[in-house]
Amino acid sequence: VYEGPVQDLIDELARLPGIGPKGAQRIAFHLLAADEIDARRLGEVITRVKQAITPCRRCFNFAQGDFCRICADDRRDPAQLCVVEDPRGVVAIERTREYRGRYHVLGGAISPLDGIGPDSLHIEELLARLGDEGVTEVILALNSSHEGEATASYLQDRLAGRGVRVTRLASGLPVGGDLDYADELTLGRALLGRRDLATG
Amino acid sequence: VYEGPVQDLIDELARLPGIGPKGAQRIAFHLLAADEIDARRLGEVITRVKQAITPCRRCFNFAQGDFCRICADDRRDPAQLCVVEDPRGVVAIERTREYRGRYHVLGGAISPLDGIGPDSLHIEELLARLGDEGVTEVILALNSSHEGEATASYLQDRLAGRGVRVTRLASGLPVGGDLDYADELTLGRALLGRRDLATG
Repeated sequence: VYEGPVQDLIDELARLPGIGPKGAQRIAFHLLAADEIDARRLGEVITRVKQAITPCRRCFNFAQGDFCRICADDRRDPAQLCVVEDPRGVVAIERTREYRGRYHVLGGAISPLDGIGPDSLHIEELLARLGDEGVTEVILALNSSHEGEATASYLQDRLAGRGVRVTRLASGLPVGGDLDYADELTLGRALLGRRDLATG
Repeated sequence: VYEGPVQDLIDELARLPGIGPKGAQRIAFHLLAADEIDARRLGEVITRVKQAITPCRRCFNFAQGDFCRICADDRRDPAQLCVVEDPRGVVAIERTREYRGRYHVLGGAISPLDGIGPDSLHIEELLARLGDEGVTEVILALNSSHEGEATASYLQDRLAGRGVRVTRLASGLPVGGDLDYADELTLGRALLGRRDLATG
């Protein structure tokens, strides 16, 4: 019903998560009223981000180039490996300033209802890293959702007998909450108070 | 905290109306996980819309080129002029299929608290159109907010004594509601049942 380019914009915005048709219209009107420079900048960052960002070849975190900033930093301890569902987990743990090891981003959590099984996640790559990098401890820092719990349980089985200490974040996180909603203090304490699941 | 291009995207998204930092992060992750074609299309429609859309030279509705689709359509009756706050009002009235006249988009409503006085709106251009186009009726189709009411009242004074019938939409719209939230039937009836404010 709007002029073509306006309707195209509203339609594309309405496809984004958490934005309904009225929200899309509101954002479109905001952009049309905004300075051309501001609107153009948003368009450009969206167009650019897909080309600029690739998965880290080692840990699958966001990277510009082959390796993410953490994998490229040789002051990080390769013996500790913190397993998270997605890059939000990396950012949440980094914010605590309590961790100096590396990460492994699984790319999600096991969720049979959504068709996500272990094969959809970067689990084989995780197992391969244990020997390659001399890992002595794997910290499971998954969301405390059903899917996160199921994934932690699956990984615990897969990691057993491999000569690495397997830990998970201490409880203290609100049950059912996502990792990146926890404040730094709570998450930092949960990390320091992590408990053993198994010693392989 | 994220890689530069990811953080740039989150920051830009968080500046949009109705999107907080968590919503911006969620949309950024959606775009990073989406097909490159889909993400690129959103970037391009945003970049394109500001160049493609200009205000109609006659009515200030969205236009591609000099005139909007309605002003460019010579089957529309120039004697009837429907005054709306912004292009959402045009779309809402068009959806009723009850109106065959032209529009005039004010560009907002009088709101002293926001620094929007009559001079910020396209009111002089409205007055100039009356004689130029042989207008016999001006329909005030403003939102039924305080600002919309104040604007209708101001326009009623400015239009008095100019030889045009001045009408407004029948009540029936929910008080305090925006025009574009009304369903077609309610708005169509409000249009048909419009009442005279003054015959100049």
